[in-house]
Amino acid sequence: MATRVEEIMQLPARQRVERLSRAGQLFHVVLAQQFSRNFIDDICMLAEMVRRIAGVRIGSDFLRNLLAHRRAMLYFTQPSTRTFLSFTSACQIVGARYNEVRDPKTSSEVKGESEEDAVRVFSQYFDVIIMRHPQEGFVEKTAHLINEMERTIPVINGGSGKDQHPTQALLDIYTLYQAFSGGALVSRAAGAEIDPFPGKKIAMVGDLKRGRTVRSLSYLLCRYPQVQIFFCSPPELAIGEDILEYLREHQVKYQVLSELDHILPDMDAVYMTRIQDEHDVAGESSKIDYSRFYITPDKLKRCKPALAIMHPLPRRLEIHVECDTDPRAKYWQQVQNGMWMRAALLAYVFNTSQRIKDYYLENYTY
Amino acid sequence: MATRVEEIMQLPARQRVERLSRAGQLFHVVLAQQFSRNFIDDICMLAEMVRRIAGVRIGSDFLRNLLAHRRAMLYFTQPSTRTFLSFTSACQIVGARYNEVRDPKTSSEVKGESEEDAVRVFSQYFDVIIMRHPQEGFVEKTAHLINEMERTIPVINGGSGKDQHPTQALLDIYTLYQAFSGGALVSRAAGAEIDPFPGKKIAMVGDLKRGRTVRSLSYLLCRYPQVQIFFCSPPELAIGEDILEYLREHQVKYQVLSELDHILPDMDAVYMTRIQDEHDVAGESSKIDYSRFYITPDKLKRCKPALAIMHPLPRRLEIHVECDTDPRAKYWQQVQNGMWMRAALLAYVFNTSQRIKDYYLENYTY
Amino acid sequence: MATRVEEIMQLPARQRVERLSRAGQLFHVVLAQQFSRNFIDDICMLAEMVRRIAGVRIGSDFLRNLLAHRRAMLYFTQPSTRTFLSFTSACQIVGARYNEVRDPKTSSEVKGESEEDAVRVFSQYFDVIIMRHPQEGFVEKTAHLINEMERTIPVINGGSGKDQHPTQALLDIYTLYQAFSGGALVSRAAGAEIDPFPGKKIAMVGDLKRGRTVRSLSYLLCRYPQVQIFFCSPPELAIGEDILEYLREHQVKYQVLSELDHILPDMDAVYMTRIQDEHDVAGESSKIDYSRFYITPDKLKRCKPALAIMHPLPRRLEIHVECDTDPRAKYWQQVQNGMWMRAALLAYVFNTSQRIKDYYLENYTY
Repeated sequence: MATRVEEIMQLPARQRVERLSRAGQLFHVVLAQQFSRNFIDDICMLAEMVRRIAGVRIGSDFLRNLLAHRRAMLYFTQPSTRTFLSFTSACQIVGARYNEVRDPKTSSEVKGESEEDAVRVFSQYFDVIIMRHPQEGFVEKTAHLINEMERTIPVINGGSGKDQHPTQALLDIYTLYQAFSGGALVSRAAGAEIDPFPGKKIAMVGDLKRGRTVRSLSYLLCRYPQVQIFFCSPPELAIGEDILEYLREHQVKYQVLSELDHILPDMDAVYMTRIQDEHDVAGESSKIDYSRFYITPDKLKRCKPALAIMHPLPRRLEIHVECDTDPRAKYWQQVQNGMWMRAALLAYVFNTSQRIKDYYLENYTY
Repeated sequence: MATRVEEIMQLPARQRVERLSRAGQLFHVVLAQQFSRNFIDDICMLAEMVRRIAGVRIGSDFLRNLLAHRRAMLYFTQPSTRTFLSFTSACQIVGARYNEVRDPKTSSEVKGESEEDAVRVFSQYFDVIIMRHPQEGFVEKTAHLINEMERTIPVINGGSGKDQHPTQALLDIYTLYQAFSGGALVSRAAGAEIDPFPGKKIAMVGDLKRGRTVRSLSYLLCRYPQVQIFFCSPPELAIGEDILEYLREHQVKYQVLSELDHILPDMDAVYMTRIQDEHDVAGESSKIDYSRFYITPDKLKRCKPALAIMHPLPRRLEIHVECDTDPRAKYWQQVQNGMWMRAALLAYVFNTSQRIKDYYLENYTY
Repeated sequence: MATRVEEIMQLPARQRVERLSRAGQLFHVVLAQQFSRNFIDDICMLAEMVRRIAGVRIGSDFLRNLLAHRRAMLYFTQPSTRTFLSFTSACQIVGARYNEVRDPKTSSEVKGESEEDAVRVFSQYFDVIIMRHPQEGFVEKTAHLINEMERTIPVINGGSGKDQHPTQALLDIYTLYQAFSGGALVSRAAGAEIDPFPGKKIAMVGDLKRGRTVRSLSYLLCRYPQVQIFFCSPPELAIGEDILEYLREHQVKYQVLSELDHILPDMDAVYMTRIQDEHDVAGESSKIDYSRFYITPDKLKRCKPALAIMHPLPRRLEIHVECDTDPRAKYWQQVQNGMWMRAALLAYVFNTSQRIKDYYLENYTY
């Protein structure tokens, strides 16, 4: 069996993606490549509906009943408070109960059990596995592994290895939607593929070489080819050539810059990131002058009034705390959006998204 | 922003206390100074109602529905099993779901995030933050910090630094109420400020210098000036002069003693505490003969039949285990009272105390 | 008080067992000796009903309401992911909320509290204590300790010391029931003591000396004297003489063998276990050739088509992963059965088993 899974992992991405679906919709949510433009639009709309419905008690009661019979395993062997709490909050919003395994040392692995068997055990107890794992590809492998079991349950990727963090990319897109098209997110005609970000200029700033959020977001933005991306970083931490090639393939306009300040006044969104010095081999980041990529109240004075300042957090000094109260700061909202997005994903995975849409349309005006 | 909070922290207590309230009632529950006599009476009555309502299934269903739409963050960076479980149980009683962060090492702080930002993130996910923190003033600071956010949520102090543990003080007063005025707790006429402890003699025993529970309880007892307090400790561990001065200001009678036995037969309550030798610098506590401050079955023979023996726990040898079955032992009830008190506080903070009172008055006879 | 409990622990098992019951039924679930044949039959039937009822949403809603007003403490000071998750899942199935203490270091023990006092505190907060403990007899001692309290609550043994793991034995019997008598589990006439395993041949394989699951299961199988047991292990790891004596007393046929292969084709069930080398003093297990006790796809070809392959997990190499997809592999079902069995036990302990039976009989045909 393990070998069958190994074989599957050798297949081209498109064939593997197929194996992550059931009945024409996502079953496992594992790879950003799974997200069509239509899926992204739909899940953002769903997240926005969840957010609005949750705003009053009776709505939150409705949501909490949706998955009251479902139970989730949060298997987070890579430390993460933010994403973990976002998922547990999401579970609570849609009423799913959950359990967690966070420290592999307390698990049966000390008794010589393989991690594959641990996952097989979880699949007996729970209705979904939400997983964060340090090893690249392991979350996807788990999905294929569970496909082999008699009882198959969905697997949701909460971040795996250096590359994939698909729910983060979705919440970022959702935040851009809120910033750029507001209410239209919910009111758009079904299936209408109108570009929600026409000509919008987005700066990606910071450690672009090692930050996986910028990478995933760039991938997803290729579904919106009218955007323009400005990659601003110290040359040592420039965005990877693979991303740039992918953007060119999809005709997305971009620029690679080693400054931020001169383009800032022209931006519609800035996506700030911290320096990822935990990946440093010999403290090389400490030699880089990073301060010219900071956002300060002073710089904000020259920016557009509708600018969206984003940050996947945790932040260090990239955004001065005095910017926090500026209405253009969207990073706290972004945190919250992660929760709504993940609640929407859980609802989607358990086939209750139509019930949410019906509830919304029945109870809310556009 | 951080600097604004720093400025607030420099204000006199009275002005800071004001900033912890909204619409004439407590919003954040952070400092014992916030508790008026009327508030204490009221919250004790509410705790007692919660306790009685929870006693039957249908009542517990009512309570569990109260805050079913609320979610709490328990941010406990100082180890504490007892208080932690008391709060989680309280959440469960009023139906609130919760999440926890207990080990700062698993949190994003390893990625260089400030604790202030961690708190700001929590404020996006949750409806209340319950916090225990080793650093004096940090819980209060958090409350002011969250006041600056767009989304403000209440902060409840589960113990901070050496001085403040307001919910412990409330549960202690509540236990005294049960011991001294029983049913009157619930049946008293609204607003009737009758002293519930007239002339009661309360001994505070043990390490009075370093135990914060005795300090907070003494502060609160000044709202009941008819009590008499007897501080019994080895001279090295005597109660601080600041407390005595505060008692004098409020005309509360007290005595400072280095013995317990000769006053014991005359006491209505003894509040026992353990020696806090984790604060020892050079094992100085180990030289103190502490055994003359012990309660034993033998000593109890000479005590009043209605004596209330209290202890904030954990205990060591201060109270002999054979005393546990004596009906005068109230320390297990005290543990339970903590849970009822914290459930009452949660209900209060979310403005549902009136619903509890209505339910009680509708369903119970006095 | 502690001394009274010590005295009780010196009593013969039969008298201690009596003290674990109330009103003619189990109150604490601590020792395998408490389980009569009738109790085992009944609890297996209940587990099967729970499993079937939970299969549809409306049924799971019914179950989740059963103990919605109960709260459990999971006190697991011995590491265990599998059993822990099984119990938390069981709690969630019957709607009980729970709290956990897993790391004694975070508990108040650092402040010098005795473990007995910790348990007394839990008994104030919760309605049941589920406990796993490294020290033999401690779970039972806890039950007697709580019997002395004013508020007594049931204690459930989740594994204590080397010997007792009663819920594992129950789930193993339940799995045998499913394998051998299928639907009869639920449809049997009340009180009809028909042997469900007549003449069935069960091989116990592996480290029989140190594995407590085989020991407990052997004890319980004495309630079914028609079975035949084959103990297959390296001579160094043979089953204890005490177990054999117990089987002889109960007229259960058995054989002690140092091979597996020649009897395998004749078996109705094989209960595989891993080598327990964490108990090794000097790596002695590493010298044993264990591979002749492995199950492989090849060996399975010669086995009965209705063979039940069981394993308490975690497994190492005893069962080749390619066997996992063989329909005779029951070890994943066994994992799941643990959850149903523990849910049934919780329902039983809180006197709601009749409600489950009524619901089943009302809604399901036999």
